[in-house]
Amino acid sequence: MNTFGNIFRLTTFGESHGPAMGGVIDGVPAGILFSLKEMQQTVDARRPGTKAGASPRCESDRVRILSGLMAYNQADGSLSALTDDTDIVISLGTSIGFMVENGDARPVAYDVLREVYRPNHADITYDCKYGVRDWRGGGRSSGRETVSRVVAGAFATQALRRLGVEIHAKVTGIGGEKDPAKFAAMLDEAARQGDSLGGVVSVRITGVPAGWGEPVFGKLQQMLAGAMLSIGGVHGFEYGDGFALSDSRGSQVADEIFPGDDTTHVRFGSNHCGGILGGISTGQEIVMNVAFKPTPTIRRELHTVRHDGTAVTITPGEGGRHDVCIALRGCPVVAAMAAMVLYDAALMSRLARC
Amino acid sequence: MNTFGNIFRLTTFGESHGPAMGGVIDGVPAGILFSLKEMQQTVDARRPGTKAGASPRCESDRVRILSGLMAYNQADGSLSALTDDTDIVISLGTSIGFMVENGDARPVAYDVLREVYRPNHADITYDCKYGVRDWRGGGRSSGRETVSRVVAGAFATQALRRLGVEIHAKVTGIGGEKDPAKFAAMLDEAARQGDSLGGVVSVRITGVPAGWGEPVFGKLQQMLAGAMLSIGGVHGFEYGDGFALSDSRGSQVADEIFPGDDTTHVRFGSNHCGGILGGISTGQEIVMNVAFKPTPTIRRELHTVRHDGTAVTITPGEGGRHDVCIALRGCPVVAAMAAMVLYDAALMSRLARC
Amino acid sequence: MNTFGNIFRLTTFGESHGPAMGGVIDGVPAGILFSLKEMQQTVDARRPGTKAGASPRCESDRVRILSGLMAYNQADGSLSALTDDTDIVISLGTSIGFMVENGDARPVAYDVLREVYRPNHADITYDCKYGVRDWRGGGRSSGRETVSRVVAGAFATQALRRLGVEIHAKVTGIGGEKDPAKFAAMLDEAARQGDSLGGVVSVRITGVPAGWGEPVFGKLQQMLAGAMLSIGGVHGFEYGDGFALSDSRGSQVADEIFPGDDTTHVRFGSNHCGGILGGISTGQEIVMNVAFKPTPTIRRELHTVRHDGTAVTITPGEGGRHDVCIALRGCPVVAAMAAMVLYDAALMSRLARC
Amino acid sequence: MNTFGNIFRLTTFGESHGPAMGGVIDGVPAGILFSLKEMQQTVDARRPGTKAGASPRCESDRVRILSGLMAYNQADGSLSALTDDTDIVISLGTSIGFMVENGDARPVAYDVLREVYRPNHADITYDCKYGVRDWRGGGRSSGRETVSRVVAGAFATQALRRLGVEIHAKVTGIGGEKDPAKFAAMLDEAARQGDSLGGVVSVRITGVPAGWGEPVFGKLQQMLAGAMLSIGGVHGFEYGDGFALSDSRGSQVADEIFPGDDTTHVRFGSNHCGGILGGISTGQEIVMNVAFKPTPTIRRELHTVRHDGTAVTITPGEGGRHDVCIALRGCPVVAAMAAMVLYDAALMSRLARC
Repeated sequence: MNTFGNIFRLTTFGESHGPAMGGVIDGVPAGILFSLKEMQQTVDARRPGTKAGASPRCESDRVRILSGLMAYNQADGSLSALTDDTDIVISLGTSIGFMVENGDARPVAYDVLREVYRPNHADITYDCKYGVRDWRGGGRSSGRETVSRVVAGAFATQALRRLGVEIHAKVTGIGGEKDPAKFAAMLDEAARQGDSLGGVVSVRITGVPAGWGEPVFGKLQQMLAGAMLSIGGVHGFEYGDGFALSDSRGSQVADEIFPGDDTTHVRFGSNHCGGILGGISTGQEIVMNVAFKPTPTIRRELHTVRHDGTAVTITPGEGGRHDVCIALRGCPVVAAMAAMVLYDAALMSRLARC
Repeated sequence: MNTFGNIFRLTTFGESHGPAMGGVIDGVPAGILFSLKEMQQTVDARRPGTKAGASPRCESDRVRILSGLMAYNQADGSLSALTDDTDIVISLGTSIGFMVENGDARPVAYDVLREVYRPNHADITYDCKYGVRDWRGGGRSSGRETVSRVVAGAFATQALRRLGVEIHAKVTGIGGEKDPAKFAAMLDEAARQGDSLGGVVSVRITGVPAGWGEPVFGKLQQMLAGAMLSIGGVHGFEYGDGFALSDSRGSQVADEIFPGDDTTHVRFGSNHCGGILGGISTGQEIVMNVAFKPTPTIRRELHTVRHDGTAVTITPGEGGRHDVCIALRGCPVVAAMAAMVLYDAALMSRLARC
Repeated sequence: MNTFGNIFRLTTFGESHGPAMGGVIDGVPAGILFSLKEMQQTVDARRPGTKAGASPRCESDRVRILSGLMAYNQADGSLSALTDDTDIVISLGTSIGFMVENGDARPVAYDVLREVYRPNHADITYDCKYGVRDWRGGGRSSGRETVSRVVAGAFATQALRRLGVEIHAKVTGIGGEKDPAKFAAMLDEAARQGDSLGGVVSVRITGVPAGWGEPVFGKLQQMLAGAMLSIGGVHGFEYGDGFALSDSRGSQVADEIFPGDDTTHVRFGSNHCGGILGGISTGQEIVMNVAFKPTPTIRRELHTVRHDGTAVTITPGEGGRHDVCIALRGCPVVAAMAAMVLYDAALMSRLARC
Repeated sequence: MNTFGNIFRLTTFGESHGPAMGGVIDGVPAGILFSLKEMQQTVDARRPGTKAGASPRCESDRVRILSGLMAYNQADGSLSALTDDTDIVISLGTSIGFMVENGDARPVAYDVLREVYRPNHADITYDCKYGVRDWRGGGRSSGRETVSRVVAGAFATQALRRLGVEIHAKVTGIGGEKDPAKFAAMLDEAARQGDSLGGVVSVRITGVPAGWGEPVFGKLQQMLAGAMLSIGGVHGFEYGDGFALSDSRGSQVADEIFPGDDTTHVRFGSNHCGGILGGISTGQEIVMNVAFKPTPTIRRELHTVRHDGTAVTITPGEGGRHDVCIALRGCPVVAAMAAMVLYDAALMSRLARC
């Protein structure tokens, strides 16, 4: 269960303080040109220590490509081996292996967590499930796992762009506040207090043609919802008018249809449905919201238990390296997962008709 | 893409006014006793025409079992052929085929829909995707498709009960109203006005032991979210405190852990996390909410287009058989999908340890 | 594990003397025209009681289509409901459900098999695996299960024909004899003696373009081998020169390549490789052989045990309805499985390039 | 299509002269102890340059574990980070990432192959499929790809041993010769002549309990056949008496069943069926044969074409590093694939009963 996707498939591995994170991307058609430099920039944007409210852990997060791509000479179309400086590559149609070394692994700092379950972390459930656990920084359950998703999402994003599809994700709420002007102050204050804040990431996807997504058990919203809820810390998903629709009357939220013009077959009067009907894209913008919980690592003394069941109190955020609001770092992860879902749907759409 | 689940897998078929609905359930272990009568009752509870606010379409929805089960004599343990009166059956370990005839198929009533796209229905997107479409009552995109889910969910529910797991789903909001005492009046009024109402279905799942669910790409909340968003008309999913968590501070929503007593290893001070941490069940109740949009079939004149792109107005709810609030009939479907996810997780949990 | 295929997927159900056999075909693109009458004829060709050496069990094997197809009027392109007389249908892009009633179920004849394990049958292994078993005529392990494969294969065959691909399967060996002129006499003699004979089915597939099949874990020969060995009674598979290649020198079996002519890019000097290199079709004929064991149901007294482990002797072929040589009825099953593999590969080939 | 298996799943990557080979192993239960040193020895046994008749390419083939395992202290049960000297490790239940650097990559030696298709190699079919190709030493189609299979197979082998299952694979035929005493002389002579030889690998699997394997589309022989035919150069598979069964009479090959003794429920009089009935293991030895073609890289001038379709002759074995008989190096790959199939079946057998 470390694989995501149907045709465009990502299989990942890696514990936070083990040797490396990485994965295998399968299903990329041959002949697509990608920019490795842009891919690395996308990964860098997710990296801790690069923005306010984010964890100061220092990782270079240099992605090493292990297979599936060759350097592409745009002048003559020739292929050659990858080097450290390679930018433009071409997909071979084979699986793309990649890895990111865990350079800044400081497992000693986590020794205390060998025996203690941090509240609202997966420590206790991993132990219940497996009976054995990599306690170092959350192990497999760490947010660091998302670096592999961002790598795969970066390739999907570039492939989608050639199809005219763009994904726009941004934080639209922090701790209940919707005004972006106030976000920085809220984050600073919460950091000072050793507290954390929840947040919302909103996504708009433009350029998706009508007809992507599968009916019944491969609905576009189903794939998107599963993708989003697979991200650690996400507790909610809605698309179109979302939960507000459950408070509405049908007469208020009808998306009427009108004849189109030269460029589109039809025109919709509104988009309460969020760009998807019956699991299939309408050609309108796809819009959705993703709710993140506050990071559980706070500087408060909390009751918990040791592995042996005895009581103890800990202050999880004491001296650690943690995000005040995981929605911030979650934003590129949300975009990456959305890109994987959409590109997968794009490939599947090749199979719809004879 | 007509299959749902990993080990416990449901593959479905059927158009609303084609010959029959049905499916194949795979992955049911051998030797489980089921009550076919209880299964039929579960299906009957979903049937249209049985409660206020629901569609008056009359279907007997008699489920015919085609394979995978034999009648079980509880007195002597002997097996025999299924008959119309069989109640207790035993699973053979083979796939369970089943079907429900579409007895009340009146496709003539839908002839007008051959050429016209109903707003907020999947008519237009199916045509965009496939270039051909069963226009009769929504075809494959009809809510009638969910009968197959309820059949499979009924088996999962019975299997879960033997493991001590119970799923409780109910409508907790209609058109913004949270007081159940007022639901009937709201539904009556909306029906009179030819309008429709959104709604929320809330689910509590009790008895799940700690340790179900897979990390990373098989998180329990991911499977639940995908399951819920695969239901037509669902626009939102949240678990635990859900979207409210995005408005919260970490210090407000910490689920502290205390030593347990004779019956449980640990005790949690609260359940903001909704019974899941890191994708794996904690042993607490699993709680979630599912948002349904209002049924789009309302008695209002709406602008739309014909298949050829020309403008037309229609009154979709005129004379048809439709639900005022699809959350009502959605409720047993939500419960069925949750049961399938949980039972699948139960089976997968057998694979976690050596 | 009742599903076969990647894109074109068949999920089957049914015990030999349960209510019905059937399945769900997923992944058929929308807009393909099929002849239901031809499909029925293909199924009839597999039916017992229709040729020398085959079981005299009488089944009408009428295939009932339950979904996924509508009647297609070739004059005006209009769609309508399926009737008993429908011939030409069009695929809707949704899953195709179908069933075949088990009309001639005579489970009483099998009562003796409740407690006794027939040698070289699956009775004993099903019991070991599941602890419960449908003893009636082999239950799920009966050759009757293959009717669902032939239905799905018939659709794949028709779809492939539009792509120029034809599958030719025939019995090329019976009991060690390779001369077809002698087959009838051998079958008669074996039937008189209450004995049975093994056989070989050889397949030639023409019209496959170069480029079908996936490298590494989706090789065309891998998919074909798995397909063939999934058929009950098959004990061997080889393609190209097969086992003879293991006795050869490289210099004897080199398939040299020459420039092509107007119609083909290249021309091969020979086809020892059987039309596949590196898991991918070369554009030559694909050739393979499939080895069937003799049917184990013979009129000889054999030692075996009862369910409780006590010794007993049985004469399995006494009074039953059985094939002398299962390769005969296996032939259309081999063709059906080959068609499913090839059409699946055809659909996957749409995903190979950008 | 770079993934193999159902529960125990291997996903691989790597081109022969790209940066690295590797893969991700998913589905290993938590808590299993493995010896990394034994795993490395298993990989070394497959390495080129270590036995007569095998390619002199020098690769250290040092396997680097990237995740999923931690060093296990057998004295106190404590876990710690992997180091270069770690031997005993414990599985965490998470995915096991691993890689093998391509240290001896000499792509220059392959420059001539940029434009020329080697007969009986996958060069031409990869180009037909993808339109782009890593020409360096066969790229993804190289036998070097199998190193990832041997790594995964080594873990499966160790896990199986704890269940009492052992896999014995050996070369039982070379170029038609069955007498092992003569193999060395044949290989030497063929090497001198610049020729190559086919071969047969025979496998015996002991200790498999009755009840592994799934009926219909997950038959044990189906999984084994698919596994074997996924290995480059394999052209045939048979189990039990295999192709000889197609020449037999039922009365000659009946495996009679007798009451067992203290240690086994039943005893079989013979094993023509090869230890599998109805796709499920009988508890007897599983026996099978795998046919390898001669390596196509021979020192003979052969006709072929360039990428542009023009004629050319090449002598493929001139100066390269190649095996005389790929069955030799294929032997550990066959064992590895068999181990993966069997361990997968072992895990699935946990799901058969309630």
